[in-house]
Amino acid sequence: MPQRVERRLMAILAADVVGYSRLMCADEEGTLARLKTHRHRLVDPKITEHRGRIVKTTGDGLLAEFPSAVDALRCAVEVQRGMIAGNVDASQKKKIEFRVGINVSDIMLDEGDIFGDGVNVAARLESLAEPGGCRKTSRTSSILRSKTWASSTSRT
Amino acid sequence: MPQRVERRLMAILAADVVGYSRLMCADEEGTLARLKTHRHRLVDPKITEHRGRIVKTTGDGLLAEFPSAVDALRCAVEVQRGMIAGNVDASQKKKIEFRVGINVSDIMLDEGDIFGDGVNVAARLESLAEPGGCRKTSRTSSILRSKTWASSTSRT
Repeated sequence: MPQRVERRLMAILAADVVGYSRLMCADEEGTLARLKTHRHRLVDPKITEHRGRIVKTTGDGLLAEFPSAVDALRCAVEVQRGMIAGNVDASQKKKIEFRVGINVSDIMLDEGDIFGDGVNVAARLESLAEPGGCRKTSRTSSILRSKTWASSTSRT
Repeated sequence: MPQRVERRLMAILAADVVGYSRLMCADEEGTLARLKTHRHRLVDPKITEHRGRIVKTTGDGLLAEFPSAVDALRCAVEVQRGMIAGNVDASQKKKIEFRVGINVSDIMLDEGDIFGDGVNVAARLESLAEPGGCRKTSRTSSILRSKTWASSTSRT
């Protein structure tokens, strides 16, 4: 009998840098250095603070999981606000902005990685978000609806 | 600064016995004994098998949480099927049937108990289910939709 897949309800957060190719073309080393600084000072600590876990990173983005949708949204809002402050001294050409997508899904866990259509949906949503914004699936919004903090601070 | 509430995405399952007052009026001791047998032989082991936890019980019902919506639905379907088999020899007057409601929510945890509107919604849904059936919120159905097993076996 095959071992049953371990499943868990999670809020999946996908984020990537707006116009990464353009930024890299203009200033490869500088872009990488600024991105690393934002990750180190803001993004990674916020994910940890909100009990999230970075599942994987790509050159310009990351995928994280959160046991709570409220925590995932709080993290996204605080990161996006922090990026506004972090970009104050940057010229338009050097500004790093993130797009974020959040989706609640019943994911499959295997050896530290996560699988399932819910992961792909988060990534697709992220690509549709405004620069500096965050998109959520309607079921994620439904779960967040009665959470006063979440509904008063979210930007979709 | 107040301590932050611990939140977690969970599938909440609420179940209770159809016509419990009528059954108790007709045969108090017999009903209680049969209910205990169904709990002991079927319901509680199925909840454990699907990684659920009984949060609380009432005279005629229970509230359980599952880390996965797929697991919660599997549990509900297997319990309801098991009850059909368990009632084969019972007369209509003595038959014990459950109504079940399932809702995915971002619940608050406190000292082993769970709180939030998602818990109340599961209980309200349960009261609307058919005897022997299971009702889910639309966001729960949305999460289950791409899970082939779940969509082919659920009865709402």
